[in-house]
Amino acid sequence: MKIAVIGAGGWGTALATVLGENNHQVSLWARSQAFAAELAATRHNPRYLPDAVLPDGVVCTADLDAAARGAAIVIIATPSHAVRAAAGALAEHLAAGAVVVSAAKGLEIGSLKRMSEVIVEEIPAAAARLVALSGPNHAEEVALRQPTATVAASASREAAEAVQDALMAPYFRVYTNPDIIGVELGGALKNIVALGAGIGDGLGFGDNAKAALMTRGLAEITRLGVAMGASPLTFAGLAGIGDLIVTCTSSHSRNRRAGLALAAGKTVGEIEGETGMVVEGIRSTLAAHQLAGRLGVEMPITAEIHRVLYQGADPREAVGRLMGRGRTHEVEEGAEIENW
Amino acid sequence: MKIAVIGAGGWGTALATVLGENNHQVSLWARSQAFAAELAATRHNPRYLPDAVLPDGVVCTADLDAAARGAAIVIIATPSHAVRAAAGALAEHLAAGAVVVSAAKGLEIGSLKRMSEVIVEEIPAAAARLVALSGPNHAEEVALRQPTATVAASASREAAEAVQDALMAPYFRVYTNPDIIGVELGGALKNIVALGAGIGDGLGFGDNAKAALMTRGLAEITRLGVAMGASPLTFAGLAGIGDLIVTCTSSHSRNRRAGLALAAGKTVGEIEGETGMVVEGIRSTLAAHQLAGRLGVEMPITAEIHRVLYQGADPREAVGRLMGRGRTHEVEEGAEIENW
Repeated sequence: MKIAVIGAGGWGTALATVLGENNHQVSLWARSQAFAAELAATRHNPRYLPDAVLPDGVVCTADLDAAARGAAIVIIATPSHAVRAAAGALAEHLAAGAVVVSAAKGLEIGSLKRMSEVIVEEIPAAAARLVALSGPNHAEEVALRQPTATVAASASREAAEAVQDALMAPYFRVYTNPDIIGVELGGALKNIVALGAGIGDGLGFGDNAKAALMTRGLAEITRLGVAMGASPLTFAGLAGIGDLIVTCTSSHSRNRRAGLALAAGKTVGEIEGETGMVVEGIRSTLAAHQLAGRLGVEMPITAEIHRVLYQGADPREAVGRLMGRGRTHEVEEGAEIENW
Repeated sequence: MKIAVIGAGGWGTALATVLGENNHQVSLWARSQAFAAELAATRHNPRYLPDAVLPDGVVCTADLDAAARGAAIVIIATPSHAVRAAAGALAEHLAAGAVVVSAAKGLEIGSLKRMSEVIVEEIPAAAARLVALSGPNHAEEVALRQPTATVAASASREAAEAVQDALMAPYFRVYTNPDIIGVELGGALKNIVALGAGIGDGLGFGDNAKAALMTRGLAEITRLGVAMGASPLTFAGLAGIGDLIVTCTSSHSRNRRAGLALAAGKTVGEIEGETGMVVEGIRSTLAAHQLAGRLGVEMPITAEIHRVLYQGADPREAVGRLMGRGRTHEVEEGAEIENW
C-alpha cells in the first residue's frame, strides 16, 4: 500500500519508519528540497530524530504531488499551525478515496478549531475518511522500538481500521475509537495541565499535588470535551489521561519547563522571548478559557493558569484559591449524585 | 468534635495532625503503651512520620476505650491485614451514631473482601455510616502541609460530608463521592499496575510504555470494578487514576521496586524474603485474577503479571504477548461502538 507522510519532523519521521518496517511503500515529504535529499541519502534525520533509521521502502521527497499521488493513506504530521497550509496544498494531489490522517495536536489560533475541522475545510472530499492519530507518543521512543500505544479515531470505522492495520507493529499498538472529537481535544488540552504541573514543581510541591492536579485537570478537560460533543470515556483513555501522564511527568516537556519559569516569576513574554519557541500550553490555555466561557463550563484550574499567564497573578496565590474553593463532590455529573 | 484515629503509623499520624490543626479533640491510638507514651511526650513520630508535629489537641493513648469513647468519627488507619482485628476490638467502645472511616487500602486475603465489608462484619451497627477515605496521599507530604486532595466515599452523604468537614484544610482538600465500592477498589488494585510499571522500568522501557500500561491498566481495573458494582467515573478520579499516578511514578513505591526485581529475574519468594516486607501488589494481583475469573472480566495485564508472579513466566515475553494481542477498540463498552 502506498502511504504518504507529510512533514519530516520527529513524529513524521517516526511514523514513516514504522510504516516502512511494515513493508508499505512510503513517501516522506519534507518542505525543503535540500533536507529531503539529505534524508534520502543518509537515511537518518539527525535534526529531529537522531535514533531513527529510515527503512529502504521509504522515499524522501519535497515534491508534494509525487508524495501524495496514488497514496491510499496520507498522514499530515506537521506542527499544528502548519496544518491548514499543508492540507490546502495537498487537496489537488489526493487520490480519490484516500484516508487523511491528522497526526498534529493543537487547536487553531483564533478559530479554536480542531485539526480535523481545519483539514475538512481545506479538503472537503476527505470528510468521510478523516482520522485523528493521538496518544502518549514520544517520537524518540518509537524510533528506539520501545513499546508504545496510540489511538486512531474516526467517525468512519473503516478508515480508523485502515490506519490501525497500516501501523500495527510488535512494538506499536494501535487502538481504534469512534470519538474523533475527544481524541483531538485530549491531545490539545493536556498542555494546560502540563503547564500547571510545571508551576507546582517550581513551587516545590510533591507527588500528591501533582496527582491531584492531573486528576482534577483531566476532570475539567473532560467537562469541556463533553460540552463540545466528546465522549467522557475517551479522556480516560490513551489520548486523554495517557498523553497527560507522558506530558506532565516527562522532564523534556516544553510546557512543564515553561511552568517552572512561571513559578520563578517570569512572564509569558520573557519565557517565549528567551526560548524563541512556541509553548503550546500558553495558547491552549487561552483557547480553553475562551471555549469554557462560551459553553458555560467550569474550569477552575484553567481559569487560574489563565490569570497567571495573562493577568499577572501570583502562582502561589492561584494554588491557594484552588485549594480553598468550597467543598465539592468528586463527580458533579451523574445520576448517582442526584439521588445521593 | 471528638475524633479517634486508630493506628499511629504514617497515615494515622498525618490524619491526626490535620484534625488537630483543625481544632478537633483528637485521640491517636497506638497498639503499644510505650509507643503511645513516646508520641505523647515528644509530639513526634520519628519511626513512621518524622516531619509531623502533633498539635496540642491530639491525645496519644494505647487505651482503645479512652480513644473511641464518645468519638463522633472513628478512623481506622491500620495496615489492611489488621483492620478486622481493630474493628472487632472497637465494636464495644463505639458511641451510638459514630461514623466509622476506613483509611486502609487493600482487599482481605482469602475472602477478597473490601475493608468496609470487613468492618461492617465486625461492627454491624456502623453499616449506615461507613466511609472510605482514599486518594493520592503520601503521608510525608501531608505532614509537610503540601497541597493534597483525597476522597471521602460513603453510601451516606451525611457521613461523607461529616468526614469532609472534619478534614478540610487549606492544604488538604476532601472531595465526596457516593461510590464507596469504586473508591476502595481503586486503592486496592492500583498496586497491580505499579508492579507492572516497575517491571517496565526494569526492562528499560520508556515513558510511552509506562503511560500505556497505566492507561490500559486503569481500563481493566475499571472493568473489574464495574463488574463488582462500582461506577466507572470513580476510576477517572482521585482514588482511581490519581492514586495510580502517585504509585506508579514515585521512586518510593514498594510495588514498583518489586517490579524492578522481577524484571531482573528474581522470584516472588526471593523478593519477599530479602525485604521481609509484604508487597501489596503481589497479593492484589492474585485477588484480582481470582475475581476476574469469577466474574468473567478480561484483564490481560493482570493475567500476564499473574503469570510472571505465580507461574515463572519471563517478563519480556509477557510484554510481547500484551503488545501482540489482536487489534482492538479502545472502548469495548458503550453504545457508540455498537453503532459504529
